[in-house]
Amino acid sequence: MQRYFTKTRKDNQFILSKEDMYHIKVVMRMKDNDSIEVVYENKVYICNLYKDTILMEKEEITNYSKKIYTILCIPLLQEQKMSFVLQKATELGIDEIIPILTSRSIVKLENKQDKKLERWNRIVKEASEQSKRITIPKIREVQKISDLHLEGLKIICSTIEKENTFKKVLKNNSKCDKIIMVVGPEGGLSISEEQILKGIGFIPVTLGQNIMRVETVPIYLLSVLNYEMME
Amino acid sequence: MQRYFTKTRKDNQFILSKEDMYHIKVVMRMKDNDSIEVVYENKVYICNLYKDTILMEKEEITNYSKKIYTILCIPLLQEQKMSFVLQKATELGIDEIIPILTSRSIVKLENKQDKKLERWNRIVKEASEQSKRITIPKIREVQKISDLHLEGLKIICSTIEKENTFKKVLKNNSKCDKIIMVVGPEGGLSISEEQILKGIGFIPVTLGQNIMRVETVPIYLLSVLNYEMME
Repeated sequence: MQRYFTKTRKDNQFILSKEDMYHIKVVMRMKDNDSIEVVYENKVYICNLYKDTILMEKEEITNYSKKIYTILCIPLLQEQKMSFVLQKATELGIDEIIPILTSRSIVKLENKQDKKLERWNRIVKEASEQSKRITIPKIREVQKISDLHLEGLKIICSTIEKENTFKKVLKNNSKCDKIIMVVGPEGGLSISEEQILKGIGFIPVTLGQNIMRVETVPIYLLSVLNYEMME
Repeated sequence: MQRYFTKTRKDNQFILSKEDMYHIKVVMRMKDNDSIEVVYENKVYICNLYKDTILMEKEEITNYSKKIYTILCIPLLQEQKMSFVLQKATELGIDEIIPILTSRSIVKLENKQDKKLERWNRIVKEASEQSKRITIPKIREVQKISDLHLEGLKIICSTIEKENTFKKVLKNNSKCDKIIMVVGPEGGLSISEEQILKGIGFIPVTLGQNIMRVETVPIYLLSVLNYEMME
């Protein structure tokens, strides 16, 4: 069943965005009495379409459990790669994404932050619907590395570190309930950027001997976290 | 340094394909005495360009270790997704890929196997060069599910199985040196396809509660295997 997110409810009726209504009526060609799932305040409701309204039928009980809150800090990437990372990270359960400014990143912000954020938020919303999530990842404003003052297990995917593996760090912090992961741009973070991050509590780790493209790294990290959280 | 694979060596000279020579001379605009890496019989050689020949300078000692041989069986996918899976699986160290015929796969073979195999082999060769591998993954001919008679730990990424997790199976087979993983098409393998595979020794596993797109699954599997092999 098709899933949509909304923030607006009036009694037993949900108000969806214009884009979603267009998707329902024109793209999916749904008719009166067809059913959809609506996610409102992290709960899923089975709803019926009636004329142009979405009527709530019943709440669907989900047993969705999540053990660790995940934050991904990624450099600005070329739009196609950015879409890819946002989409895949959403599929794999990311909670929060922080775009970061790094010295070796080729892509610059150029006063386009609002437009980019709007686009990125649209991508994660759609990916959340497709992968049947009950939350949409939050995308923060673009930040400098030195501003990443966050609480939790903080790691840097380092191209310099050779000994301390991601696995060792996860095993040594098996009870952490929040992890912040910084991924560098092509060519890696600079030595001084790693120093800044180490200064605010980040631990450099190696992901092993495979040479991965930047956009593969977030999928690797989230796959491993999902696996580690599995029984 | 740019890396190229070759199968031809004459004394201290390597013969590269026309496409690679074009890449070196025209795309990369390399000049006499510029250096490249050539991989020949799983060994890396530092070479110099001299006129139109590639002269071997010295062998580079690599300490590449690999603990498990990985085989991925994937349904025929739309070409863009197929390229994506081939590229990412190569980055993450896949050894062998077997395209399989499944009932719910929308893409059909239509007598285009030779052309497809040529294209797929080109993709994995390029991805191997970029990710600095010393082997190129083998791509087998398209096979029926009932023909997958292979030795090793054999798993099915099932949409039906709910209890037996990928993690449990890996933990119970921690000494296996070869793993064969079958990924289903969109909509999953059919019940009868899973039955056929179970009949020839495959174990259905669940990858957890995230709903992943088909093309994300191989990356998930290989990320986890790399992680498990890590110290």
